[in-house]
Amino acid sequence: MRHTLAHLMAAAVLEIYPDTKPTIGPAIENGFYYDFEFSIAPGESDLPQIEAKMKELLPSWTEFTHKEVSADEARELFTNNPYKKELIDELEEKGETITLYTSGGFTDLCRGGHLENPNRDIDTRAFKVTHMAGAYWRGDEKNKMLTRIYGLAFNTKAELKEYVEMQEEAKKRDHRKLGKELDLFTFSDLVGPGLPLWTPKGTLMTDLIMEKIMDIHKTYGYQKVRIPHITKPELYKTSGHWDKFGDELFKVTGKNNAEFVLKPMNCPHHTQIYASNPRSYRDLPLRYMELGVVYRDEQAGELSGLSRVRSISMDDAHVFCRPDQIEDEIKKIVSAIKEFYTSFGMLEEGKYWVSLSVRDPEHKEKYLGSDEVWETSEEALEKIAQEEGITYKRMEGEAAFYGPKLDFMFHDAIGRERQLGTAQLDFNMPKRFGLEYTDSDGSKQTPVMIHRAIAGSMERFMSVMIEHFAGAFPFWLSPVQITLLPVSETHKEYAEKILNALEEKGLRAEIRTEETLGKRIRNWSISKNPYACVLGDEEVKNNTLSVESRDEGKLGEMSLEDFITSAH
Amino acid sequence: MRHTLAHLMAAAVLEIYPDTKPTIGPAIENGFYYDFEFSIAPGESDLPQIEAKMKELLPSWTEFTHKEVSADEARELFTNNPYKKELIDELEEKGETITLYTSGGFTDLCRGGHLENPNRDIDTRAFKVTHMAGAYWRGDEKNKMLTRIYGLAFNTKAELKEYVEMQEEAKKRDHRKLGKELDLFTFSDLVGPGLPLWTPKGTLMTDLIMEKIMDIHKTYGYQKVRIPHITKPELYKTSGHWDKFGDELFKVTGKNNAEFVLKPMNCPHHTQIYASNPRSYRDLPLRYMELGVVYRDEQAGELSGLSRVRSISMDDAHVFCRPDQIEDEIKKIVSAIKEFYTSFGMLEEGKYWVSLSVRDPEHKEKYLGSDEVWETSEEALEKIAQEEGITYKRMEGEAAFYGPKLDFMFHDAIGRERQLGTAQLDFNMPKRFGLEYTDSDGSKQTPVMIHRAIAGSMERFMSVMIEHFAGAFPFWLSPVQITLLPVSETHKEYAEKILNALEEKGLRAEIRTEETLGKRIRNWSISKNPYACVLGDEEVKNNTLSVESRDEGKLGEMSLEDFITSAH
Repeated sequence: MRHTLAHLMAAAVLEIYPDTKPTIGPAIENGFYYDFEFSIAPGESDLPQIEAKMKELLPSWTEFTHKEVSADEARELFTNNPYKKELIDELEEKGETITLYTSGGFTDLCRGGHLENPNRDIDTRAFKVTHMAGAYWRGDEKNKMLTRIYGLAFNTKAELKEYVEMQEEAKKRDHRKLGKELDLFTFSDLVGPGLPLWTPKGTLMTDLIMEKIMDIHKTYGYQKVRIPHITKPELYKTSGHWDKFGDELFKVTGKNNAEFVLKPMNCPHHTQIYASNPRSYRDLPLRYMELGVVYRDEQAGELSGLSRVRSISMDDAHVFCRPDQIEDEIKKIVSAIKEFYTSFGMLEEGKYWVSLSVRDPEHKEKYLGSDEVWETSEEALEKIAQEEGITYKRMEGEAAFYGPKLDFMFHDAIGRERQLGTAQLDFNMPKRFGLEYTDSDGSKQTPVMIHRAIAGSMERFMSVMIEHFAGAFPFWLSPVQITLLPVSETHKEYAEKILNALEEKGLRAEIRTEETLGKRIRNWSISKNPYACVLGDEEVKNNTLSVESRDEGKLGEMSLEDFITSAH
Repeated sequence: MRHTLAHLMAAAVLEIYPDTKPTIGPAIENGFYYDFEFSIAPGESDLPQIEAKMKELLPSWTEFTHKEVSADEARELFTNNPYKKELIDELEEKGETITLYTSGGFTDLCRGGHLENPNRDIDTRAFKVTHMAGAYWRGDEKNKMLTRIYGLAFNTKAELKEYVEMQEEAKKRDHRKLGKELDLFTFSDLVGPGLPLWTPKGTLMTDLIMEKIMDIHKTYGYQKVRIPHITKPELYKTSGHWDKFGDELFKVTGKNNAEFVLKPMNCPHHTQIYASNPRSYRDLPLRYMELGVVYRDEQAGELSGLSRVRSISMDDAHVFCRPDQIEDEIKKIVSAIKEFYTSFGMLEEGKYWVSLSVRDPEHKEKYLGSDEVWETSEEALEKIAQEEGITYKRMEGEAAFYGPKLDFMFHDAIGRERQLGTAQLDFNMPKRFGLEYTDSDGSKQTPVMIHRAIAGSMERFMSVMIEHFAGAFPFWLSPVQITLLPVSETHKEYAEKILNALEEKGLRAEIRTEETLGKRIRNWSISKNPYACVLGDEEVKNNTLSVESRDEGKLGEMSLEDFITSAH
């Protein structure tokens, strides 16, 4: 349907701008586009006319016909269109069949894949020409810049409406915009793109998140470690990442051309802490965790706010255990993930599912590790998902060559799917680094390694949290929890007293002192802090606060004690 | 005296090994050495003989004579010694005077600087031939390897004894040795030298130290920030560090030869957080702090344990303030430093002093910033030192060109001086980055920046702490505070119960389960954990612990509550 609409748009454009050269026009997620060379390009304001023309033409599009033609016949048809001719030449060179598709009198060079009866199957209220942009012919900046016109298309008007609303909501929630407004992070031209600098408020939030992760993990016996960010290349040559990451690795050069590399992963370093002492079967499992920063050289053009950065802070942990401890350890990780996301209210039924990546049973030879360990591990993972009552999908062939894994998939407040927590078994890396432990019978054995992340990349997690909550964070995560609004200069002293009392209770409060009370209330509202307390004559006299909640509206006058007890 | 002893050693060596070729022999800190080419090199066991020979020869060394000679005369004298001839050739080439120094019948090519009467002025009980090592002629590895023999020399026997004992004590306290024994950090050949990996115990300790620093600073209004470790070179070109650090900077290369640099300082990044929002005089001071990692490419040969590393974790803070706030801010920093070091018992009278680095009053033109600001600042720093009753020395001309500073100097448990905390005013960097704030009159002003560190480099600080305490850390800093020793298998359950109770109180405890109680006690003693609690039949019956303290010996049986209250 979306592909058909791309043709229909090309037909409409040619009706209005007859000397336009259409090039290519595919279906994309949620819609379609078509790239044109215009002699005089239209503006955004001309798009409604194009959309109207499409609707006008649609009734005549009652069927699609196609025919095979020779390259010469095709070239004949597109004699004034060098783009189509270039495509035809290529098809001819590769010896491929050349087909033309026609509907409503409009013919295009096309491989097919259309609605049988566009007029019957397209709801004119369910598509929309949305915007335009420049695009190089075939994506190559050496080629001519064309005009790309985009459209949205769904089966029903309701779906289109829902999507458009979701897009608008997403725009409002955009973490780049909110991050600036709430002063959570910043970028500097001198530092460069993809390298966020966390301001005090953003640092506090990421610290609170890490603290929560650490707190949850302490009960599971995890220990924090800290590793250097650079290493000799030998570490990643041994682990295999040197080849795998290729030119995404940042190379570091020291004196006398000494070579180092910025770490793209934390696991190889953690193996070296494991290897720093002889280990016995009694010492296992050993569980190392940290907020480890890894570096990936993404193309500057791919960088976007916190969603894609060059320095990625991972809440990364690695468990070294015996094969018989795998099930227990994974269970602990699943519990930790559930505990963590519950604290964000993100674990409601239907809001998440787990992708269980297992071996391709047809190609067992592609995987490392014995059949027995694979079968036990996959069964263990599946059993845990079942026991924990988690909706899961078995993804055959999706496992890494070194082990099966569980990925937690969440739907955020506006329905977007986000991959966050993960637990991956690894039968490979311990071998590559020659890790071992002495078993109860005195023999040397290789431990299993489990890679796990709860929040994943702290940058991406923060972008998800900002957008999920639209900046209105839960009480415990709000950088400022309570805003005090003294009505006038004479109430400032009382405000200071309340501030100190709140801080003593470990709460984070601020006093706003803009010129007018109205402005103070407005700025509180923009800040999305959970509570505002107005402090005037009445409150000073009664030793109270007049409380307004971001989420629950006016709560009225109450004592400091009552407020502290009820704030959440 | 030390130079004279080098001659005396050469004379003694020639008596015992007549066909030896002496080369050069200078005085060094605490002693002397001499480099020889032996036909058959002596072993360490021959050193006492050399020392004895020195003492035997000394009575005949009652005066030093010298004479100027021509190059030819000198060459004649050292006809079989190519090393001396090489030195003579060079002196000749430079047109320098050639002198020979003689005592007790031993003559050496020498510039002079000797005791008038060695026999009278050297106490034979105050020097000692200590050890030997290989050394390339003139330090160049392309040259022949010579044998260097070292000696210690002091004015009195007591000084020698004290120094030797201090050396032995330092050896016992060596943080590289203790760090391994106490499992605090490790190095990996795959990662490279100068890049420590912190194990769980070491990570816990550095976290505790940072927490203490943060806790102290919260009351002073400091805010944590977090910055990326790499940046475009532009940041350091703007700050001036690009030129200053030269080849100590680690260069980072990305795709398409994109250039980055590993940060050698945190301050330029912090300026970018300041610059991310307009600031008013009312917003100041702004105080940013973090455990920021900086990178310096030290020569591999200079790296040593944690004392000198390539990735340095700084407890770094930068205060941006108005000129009229300098005094108050420095006062807060001094208070914070005192509070911090008091918690380590390192602030006793006579154990520390402050170096106050001020301008060279003769060359005011070399410094940046107005006379008025310099004078006010220097006065403020001095006044604070006086008010706080700190011993300080005014070091004229020692200030950086960008501002005066205070450095805290400490003496560790065995008397070594260590520079730790610092506060530096900076009138330069805010200008270079164009930082500003809007003053009360609406004008734009440049803030002053204060760089401050409390522990300084966390790596160096940890090495100082390990050696200062010889691994027996204060209770609050001990990675494991309490070791539980169940007498036999039947007492393990009770030990688990006690462990949980201690952990619930936020104490860090472990259960040792080696084969014999004797071994358990021995390993506790090696671990230097503050307390061991023996748990046997008696203790289970009475619901008690039998406590032994690392510092206070056997404390006897007591209830868990009493132990928790008294543990410190």
